[in-house]
Amino acid sequence: MLLGAIEAGGTKFVLAVGNQDGEILDKLTIPTEHPDQTIPKVVNYFKDKGIKKLGLGAFGPIDLNQKSPTYGQLQKTPKTDWVDYPLGAVLQEKLSVPVVIDTDVNVAAMAEAKFGNATDVDSCLYITVGTGIGGGFYYRGQTLNGLSHPELGHIKVRRHPDDRYQGTCPSHGDCLEGLAAGPALEKRWGKKGDQLVGVDEVWEMEAFYLAQALTIFIYVLSPERIVLGGGVMKQKQLFPLIRKYVIDMLNGYVSSPYLTADQIDQYIVAPGLTDEAGIKGALYLVMD
Amino acid sequence: MLLGAIEAGGTKFVLAVGNQDGEILDKLTIPTEHPDQTIPKVVNYFKDKGIKKLGLGAFGPIDLNQKSPTYGQLQKTPKTDWVDYPLGAVLQEKLSVPVVIDTDVNVAAMAEAKFGNATDVDSCLYITVGTGIGGGFYYRGQTLNGLSHPELGHIKVRRHPDDRYQGTCPSHGDCLEGLAAGPALEKRWGKKGDQLVGVDEVWEMEAFYLAQALTIFIYVLSPERIVLGGGVMKQKQLFPLIRKYVIDMLNGYVSSPYLTADQIDQYIVAPGLTDEAGIKGALYLVMD
Repeated sequence: MLLGAIEAGGTKFVLAVGNQDGEILDKLTIPTEHPDQTIPKVVNYFKDKGIKKLGLGAFGPIDLNQKSPTYGQLQKTPKTDWVDYPLGAVLQEKLSVPVVIDTDVNVAAMAEAKFGNATDVDSCLYITVGTGIGGGFYYRGQTLNGLSHPELGHIKVRRHPDDRYQGTCPSHGDCLEGLAAGPALEKRWGKKGDQLVGVDEVWEMEAFYLAQALTIFIYVLSPERIVLGGGVMKQKQLFPLIRKYVIDMLNGYVSSPYLTADQIDQYIVAPGLTDEAGIKGALYLVMD
Repeated sequence: MLLGAIEAGGTKFVLAVGNQDGEILDKLTIPTEHPDQTIPKVVNYFKDKGIKKLGLGAFGPIDLNQKSPTYGQLQKTPKTDWVDYPLGAVLQEKLSVPVVIDTDVNVAAMAEAKFGNATDVDSCLYITVGTGIGGGFYYRGQTLNGLSHPELGHIKVRRHPDDRYQGTCPSHGDCLEGLAAGPALEKRWGKKGDQLVGVDEVWEMEAFYLAQALTIFIYVLSPERIVLGGGVMKQKQLFPLIRKYVIDMLNGYVSSPYLTADQIDQYIVAPGLTDEAGIKGALYLVMD
């Protein structure tokens, strides 16, 4: 049986056809434009592929409450063309297949747990640090959604004593995303991250913010593995800095061999699926 | 079939016999002293009761990893007499019944979801604000544990601009518990909470810290209900202050009718089981 999968992100849509074994058989990437441009391309891609179900990992905020009349509808997303767009319902109607929906980051967490760098544990926190900061959580076979879905990027963290930058978040100013996502990094230092390699204070401050957030996530979720992905995390020098700060900030309070200098590199890790976590997780949504 | 239940807290142990319907048939409360004094009293209580299984909701930190050789053993708890005490193993051996263990706050969250103020939803965050600050999370039939168990009280929050108090936490100084648990309140203002009723700035500051924490928990866990218990929350004037701050701090970012002035009193609520959440949750651990 052929299955469809979509990773609907803020900058691109990844479309794929896969099978029950989790293999991707065909894939196409298109830019995220206005729905009037993007959706016809999606429909055109899938229409003769013979898929029986479609898994959708979508950017958010999106209504994931199956009892809600607006299930699968985008909410107050910064992508203004997509606000209130009923993405799930449109795809279900135009493709005439059942559509299963979760957030892009939740399906990435699930993909890392099923196929990637967290297959040996029962819980996995996936964080992406890029244009925004988001996260998904996999726990014993399910992803975490509730009143809404997690919005991990919008927690407040304590400011670095040397940081005078006011933050980019339109809703909260200097929340985590406002201080540590790619755009904040660029505006604070006047250059993009890849032009700042070797400037130690940039990465020390970035690691300080991300590590603070990870300590909060450890206290709240107690994940058995943390996977850090997204464009900013391609700066691999961040990993050892973040790990060191996490150990310092926890100050021995949580007992685990993983939270020691010896083993933390097996606890806070890069994605195992590199750029395929989202699309593989979307496919997993409709695998039996 | 008769079942045993223990709520093992830092100041008292509640011992009970119950049945498969979740009814408490008999109950005894004893003080938490040295294990050499407390454990014989526990054994004496249960020894002729004919219980077939025992549910234990325990203070922590405690090892809940069933693969660990120290499963059920207390860890670096501030109750120094109990550090490294193998509570689960001792009870199992002395009472010759299977023992199922979770944290006191996780079982309270589960009890509120099964019998209390969160029976209509699929997830429930239970927070206790008392001698310490802790929390448990119930999600679709399970409680949340992982690398360890949640330690919600130890997140860092931003300081109130008028607060000069340094915090009480031996590990982190001014973490949430260090700034907002009962002992912090007493040391900051020089009096116990119940002698400070009517002093507005006390409760404004307390609500500021607790609401900040709740916004973090909403962003991370997206709970469908938040139950606030513990000694400090007996100050009922805190509830409206906390609810107002939560709405202000979220600033409209999470879309839900529950996060509006009209309905938030149905979202952030007092316990439905008042002081019985812990013991009822411990019983639920061993109900079929």
